Amino acid sequence: MSTSDQNKEVCFYQEWMTLQEQELSELNRAIALKANGCATDAELSQLIDKIMNNFQDYVQKRSLMASADVSPYFAPTWCTSLERSVLWIGGCRPSSYIRLIYALCGLQIESRFAEFLRGARIGNLGELSARQISMVDRLQGNTISEERKLSTRLASLQEDVLDHPLAAIALNSGSHCTDSCGTADEVLDKHGLAMAGILEEADQLRLNTLRELVRILTPPQAVDFIAAGKKLRLCMQDWGKKRDLDHGRN
Amino acid sequence: MSTSDQNKEVCFYQEWMTLQEQELSELNRAIALKANGCATDAELSQLIDKIMNNFQDYVQKRSLMASADVSPYFAPTWCTSLERSVLWIGGCRPSSYIRLIYALCGLQIESRFAEFLRGARIGNLGELSARQISMVDRLQGNTISEERKLSTRLASLQEDVLDHPLAAIALNSGSHCTDSCGTADEVLDKHGLAMAGILEEADQLRLNTLRELVRILTPPQAVDFIAAGKKLRLCMQDWGKKRDLDHGRN
Repeated sequence: MSTSDQNKEVCFYQEWMTLQEQELSELNRAIALKANGCATDAELSQLIDKIMNNFQDYVQKRSLMASADVSPYFAPTWCTSLERSVLWIGGCRPSSYIRLIYALCGLQIESRFAEFLRGARIGNLGELSARQISMVDRLQGNTISEERKLSTRLASLQEDVLDHPLAAIALNSGSHCTDSCGTADEVLDKHGLAMAGILEEADQLRLNTLRELVRILTPPQAVDFIAAGKKLRLCMQDWGKKRDLDHGRN
Repeated sequence: MSTSDQNKEVCFYQEWMTLQEQELSELNRAIALKANGCATDAELSQLIDKIMNNFQDYVQKRSLMASADVSPYFAPTWCTSLERSVLWIGGCRPSSYIRLIYALCGLQIESRFAEFLRGARIGNLGELSARQISMVDRLQGNTISEERKLSTRLASLQEDVLDHPLAAIALNSGSHCTDSCGTADEVLDKHGLAMAGILEEADQLRLNTLRELVRILTPPQAVDFIAAGKKLRLCMQDWGKKRDLDHGRN
């Protein structure tokens, strides 16, 4: 295997996070134009399509990279401790997109936040119709059910590691397990492929959930929602970096 | 906060893994004495008690350390990628102890492994009584049910991160979220305490499951089982190190 796998993974992640910042800037520009009546729904939709396509590309490339070696994606060292502590199968929980919609609606509606949020850009999400809310609720139910299925399959895969043949290989290896590395590698490679399959399905669930949400929302609502999600994602990284520094982690 | 938190955590982990090697040597010595009829059940029990007390100490110290900052324990950078990919709430799944028992019984019984395992030290686990097997089965059911409860609570906590107040803080912060760090820190500290609570309960479930198993097994069986578990744990570390090296990870 190449000695630069780690470098490739870190670069790939850094490029992705840089793209997130660029996309957030574009979204903010579109939101400003929209507020002045200078952006049409078609223009907003075009931006959303571009962002969704970028996400799909990322998922496809990551899936290819993970098929070579999946294990780092389950708890990447290139994220901060804070980000790692909230990971679910290599990313955010798909249901958390929907939690964010609820949070944004709630923030808009709760009067005690009115002053706090003066000027905040979540305007359009306070105006979800009853039909939209019931569609979001239904999506939430389906998403949680799909998440649970994947969690259960991951649990079985994780338990399989302690089953034979690995238990047998470990028991029959010498004191430092080095003599058993070759045989263990074969079993672990096969296990890794199954884990990569779960990662791919989790990514697909994230992608599909986001696509469904964008379909339910109007273009101005979708732009606000995606911008809020990216802002929160980038803040998690910044907060995580600060906290790691505070605790002397590099 | 101290700048040496990371050092403390890494040292604590390394000491624990060194202790695992020492305990495995002691177990292997006891198993050899037992095979020659030179170790009594009382002597084996004493060794098991010592090992269980060490585990309890570890859990208590870790819980104290995690209450200061829990996030690194959910995906520790001091483990290999392979080890991190099979983690469940900062350690192994409690149900995997029981999977290991089943694997060891199976290995013993399956005749096609007979030659492969000639001389392997799992002798006593092939002789579980029907009563022991039914107790292990019941424990497995309870353990999986407790695991699911904790997984569900962790899922809620992870989703809470994307809810307000953090969503509101992120939306109202400047472009690099630095102005919101203080407020975010307070919320994240509170969230961290809840995560530390889950970690403590997961550790307690691991400890209790192991205690129950030791109670069900005879001292010679328990010694074989604990030795196999530690051997597998140490092999996972060795295999993980080799695989990280192969992929150019440090």
